[in-house]
Amino acid sequence: MAIILGANTYGKAESRVVRIRRDTERHEIRDLNVSTALRGDFAAAYTVGDQSTVLPTDSQKQTAYAYAKEKGITSIEQYGLDLARHYVDDVQPVQSARIEIEEYAWERVMINGVEHDHTWTRKGQEVRTAAITVEGAGSTQQTWVVGGLKDLIILKSTGSAFAGFLTDPYTVLQPTSDRVMATSLVAKWRFTETEMDWDTVYADVKSIMVERFANLHSLALQQTLFAMGKAVLEAYREIAEVRLSAPNKHHFLYDLAPFGLENPGEVFHADDRPYGLIQATVTRDDAPPADPAWDSFTGLV
Amino acid sequence: MAIILGANTYGKAESRVVRIRRDTERHEIRDLNVSTALRGDFAAAYTVGDQSTVLPTDSQKQTAYAYAKEKGITSIEQYGLDLARHYVDDVQPVQSARIEIEEYAWERVMINGVEHDHTWTRKGQEVRTAAITVEGAGSTQQTWVVGGLKDLIILKSTGSAFAGFLTDPYTVLQPTSDRVMATSLVAKWRFTETEMDWDTVYADVKSIMVERFANLHSLALQQTLFAMGKAVLEAYREIAEVRLSAPNKHHFLYDLAPFGLENPGEVFHADDRPYGLIQATVTRDDAPPADPAWDSFTGLV
Amino acid sequence: MAIILGANTYGKAESRVVRIRRDTERHEIRDLNVSTALRGDFAAAYTVGDQSTVLPTDSQKQTAYAYAKEKGITSIEQYGLDLARHYVDDVQPVQSARIEIEEYAWERVMINGVEHDHTWTRKGQEVRTAAITVEGAGSTQQTWVVGGLKDLIILKSTGSAFAGFLTDPYTVLQPTSDRVMATSLVAKWRFTETEMDWDTVYADVKSIMVERFANLHSLALQQTLFAMGKAVLEAYREIAEVRLSAPNKHHFLYDLAPFGLENPGEVFHADDRPYGLIQATVTRDDAPPADPAWDSFTGLV
Amino acid sequence: MAIILGANTYGKAESRVVRIRRDTERHEIRDLNVSTALRGDFAAAYTVGDQSTVLPTDSQKQTAYAYAKEKGITSIEQYGLDLARHYVDDVQPVQSARIEIEEYAWERVMINGVEHDHTWTRKGQEVRTAAITVEGAGSTQQTWVVGGLKDLIILKSTGSAFAGFLTDPYTVLQPTSDRVMATSLVAKWRFTETEMDWDTVYADVKSIMVERFANLHSLALQQTLFAMGKAVLEAYREIAEVRLSAPNKHHFLYDLAPFGLENPGEVFHADDRPYGLIQATVTRDDAPPADPAWDSFTGLV
Repeated sequence: MAIILGANTYGKAESRVVRIRRDTERHEIRDLNVSTALRGDFAAAYTVGDQSTVLPTDSQKQTAYAYAKEKGITSIEQYGLDLARHYVDDVQPVQSARIEIEEYAWERVMINGVEHDHTWTRKGQEVRTAAITVEGAGSTQQTWVVGGLKDLIILKSTGSAFAGFLTDPYTVLQPTSDRVMATSLVAKWRFTETEMDWDTVYADVKSIMVERFANLHSLALQQTLFAMGKAVLEAYREIAEVRLSAPNKHHFLYDLAPFGLENPGEVFHADDRPYGLIQATVTRDDAPPADPAWDSFTGLV
Repeated sequence: MAIILGANTYGKAESRVVRIRRDTERHEIRDLNVSTALRGDFAAAYTVGDQSTVLPTDSQKQTAYAYAKEKGITSIEQYGLDLARHYVDDVQPVQSARIEIEEYAWERVMINGVEHDHTWTRKGQEVRTAAITVEGAGSTQQTWVVGGLKDLIILKSTGSAFAGFLTDPYTVLQPTSDRVMATSLVAKWRFTETEMDWDTVYADVKSIMVERFANLHSLALQQTLFAMGKAVLEAYREIAEVRLSAPNKHHFLYDLAPFGLENPGEVFHADDRPYGLIQATVTRDDAPPADPAWDSFTGLV
Repeated sequence: MAIILGANTYGKAESRVVRIRRDTERHEIRDLNVSTALRGDFAAAYTVGDQSTVLPTDSQKQTAYAYAKEKGITSIEQYGLDLARHYVDDVQPVQSARIEIEEYAWERVMINGVEHDHTWTRKGQEVRTAAITVEGAGSTQQTWVVGGLKDLIILKSTGSAFAGFLTDPYTVLQPTSDRVMATSLVAKWRFTETEMDWDTVYADVKSIMVERFANLHSLALQQTLFAMGKAVLEAYREIAEVRLSAPNKHHFLYDLAPFGLENPGEVFHADDRPYGLIQATVTRDDAPPADPAWDSFTGLV
Repeated sequence: MAIILGANTYGKAESRVVRIRRDTERHEIRDLNVSTALRGDFAAAYTVGDQSTVLPTDSQKQTAYAYAKEKGITSIEQYGLDLARHYVDDVQPVQSARIEIEEYAWERVMINGVEHDHTWTRKGQEVRTAAITVEGAGSTQQTWVVGGLKDLIILKSTGSAFAGFLTDPYTVLQPTSDRVMATSLVAKWRFTETEMDWDTVYADVKSIMVERFANLHSLALQQTLFAMGKAVLEAYREIAEVRLSAPNKHHFLYDLAPFGLENPGEVFHADDRPYGLIQATVTRDDAPPADPAWDSFTGLV
């Protein structure tokens, strides 16, 4: 029996890259949080402290900022592809690169109905995400692109039930035919293409999911999630799989009876913890293999 | 010399009250975080543990939810006035009540250009705030209403300088005639009236401040803050004072020279800490006294 | 009527200064979060954007790091005094300086019962705080030192009651003679001296407060807070006033009756929100005036 | 091609279970954050909204609190085993159960050198974790136990270098032979046994890792992590694998030269972001298969 190094990865997390385009008086802004991670034969760094094949995480930070200028940021997916390919193609010991990006949206300030040229407020709603993985050299190189969003807080005040569930000796919950359903959605979608109109697809996928959440009469959060994923797959043949994670942000009907008040679905307590957590994958039965696409930079441990 | 009880206050913080109006198929939602605090002669609770004049904080929580139904929530200012007056008028030992409220805005989901009746996403931008103080009984009762916002993240990519400052032996900062200026604004405005069209005033005050941030060519964040406050006072004679707190969220121009790249105001690092912090009061020279208006529930310690 | 600048302050918040002493093989560490703020006649910066009297916040940052070397950090109170006096004495336009510091404690790693020379783990418990204010020049200069702590999470599983309280129509709470009492304490104490053995006093004040929390049979959190403050004042004539803020971190007895289980004070749900919040000042009746001592850097708005 | 449900899981996250033992005057406390997740044939809930096999997440919450009384909490590993086995053995549709637990340590208050019977302060240092997975019925049932810790902030002020690394055109970092090395460690260790003296093993594993961090002269954080994992495996044949995740919490030597000050490793800026992130697995070459052991409740998306 020997003790050996298993899976490992290293990189620079959370470089806060802000890119302004000021070619005209109407500036553009993209505001990113960039993490990069490399895999390859770095065993000697672990076992004997030999750094000779290790590109410092500081160099990865420098590259993230430099590429914002050299390559520009037309979309986080494209920028991530540029960075990932760079590491695999240009830095010899790197066999695989993983780029994870969050993008914070800004909206132009409106003044008297006119958009301002160079002032924005942070939109504040969901955070757009992308995870790009490039593996291998030359003609066997493979690429995975996962788009996504997180922190999309969405709520419906009716059109949601929860009944007919299994009961056991610890079940005290009462069924309901009309409840508030709310979540802070995380969704990710895996592309089978690497050339897309990324910004357009993003906006469209988001609106497809929102429509399903709103219009499906929900018998359970599970059903809503599956319908959201299915609708995205039906709309985009370039998407092979959708993964969704949805905390059930409980809104408990407040008991006003002690005060002689009725409460027909009007006053709720929005609770913090605990919360239900539903996670699901919706996929095609012929989806190509996905493994590294879902291996998050921070997911090893 | 004796050891005595000084200023004190107690209450229930952060009740998460959500109110749905469902009188028609088009529901309405208001989503609040409510804190209430009472002052009065509660010394015996501190000195000898006598609770006979202490209304439990649990009762304050119940009241916050009950009033969401009994009085409704037409605005956070009005709801706060209802709660504050209730404590001072109806609970004998209470001499002063302070209500602090945060409101999270939701926007209706749009589906094919049509607003949905009962589904929203959390808007996510700034948080609206209100602080209401009512003191005293009968004809000498006084009332202070402070409206506000926080977490309004705003950025301009040009139109801001910082130069001509005082230098000392610890000064290494270089002057600049064109920088990114960004902040996460907290602003509060003190009314001299208690009957206003609160929602309209809120939207208007916010847009006045945003306009000044955008359009004033700024020689310093200080100047921008003063201009924002001044513009609000000029627009509303019912507002006596505006207070602003603005972290200078530094966007440092990234040094790309080592890589042979120019960086004419295009690539920035958005830094976390430390940050400048500018706070200012803009007021009228004949403003009525304000003291308890600014005494935050959590500000005693 | 004119619109004027009212109270204002500016500075650099949250410089994360870490100071290692390595004079011998046994190193020492102090780990601080330093905020500095200045007051003076800076009106022109606000009203016309004139920076000629404004020492940049960047210079304040540089000074915080430089003083960690020049003056050293024997205690946060002493380091804060050095910084505050520097601004008032050496930077002409400054009339008043406020320094607020948090200190994170580290404890030496123990290996086979021996303390390690240069490795620590962060202690993690409470954060020590200090706030120093220096105002005025020459013989009329005044100085206020406030020591403190925050985030001291403390719990007792018995020896606490809450009964005999006032009831109103919104009261559903039942009295209890034995409950869990827990808080995350913030405490601050105002000195009337500026020369103390600061580290010793800090440790002693903390242990006095902890003893009172533990040993006083509590009829209410209010009573416990007053007793804690009183005990500190009785021990230190150099302390004129203690302020305490204590969220009542509710531990609700969990209802296990539906499952045929008794629960005699054994299983609790630790709730997040809402929470009671009790704040109190304990003072001497002959305490000298305090005003700027309590004016937090961030407390203007 | 059909659209199908892929991997899925559901459960109740973050039940804050506090258990007091009060059999004698000397009480004991365990303070947990419990998440439970179930897998099985729940496809109908997703595809057609049929809940007939779905045990509500509310029932899972009730069970977590009830088991704190019924089974007690001798360690988080044992309590997690009890919960996981219950779901797989007693709830028919459940094929696999995953229990993830965080434990917050409390230490007894010392008064005049004596431990108090029923008062504690939260220790505040690292959080202890456990993840238990039970899969399958009867004689083919399999069980995986992973112990761990997170948020262990550890720093050494010397005995760490970083040099001899690969350079590329984006490398500006200078090698160093003496730096501050600090991290906020996450570590998890997979057991091959299900009967251990869990609390003793936990304390021992932690101290083994701390010793290696302190005493190994480090050529890179990678080397330190590997040495920590290796030492644990050498000490415990019942542990098959250790995974470590370590943000490199950069402490940058502050440039004091502009002020005429030397800074020989004494004054540092503790930076927030970006940070290096090193993750590694240390394992035995004959370790049994691990798959579900590492599938975190929240790791699907």
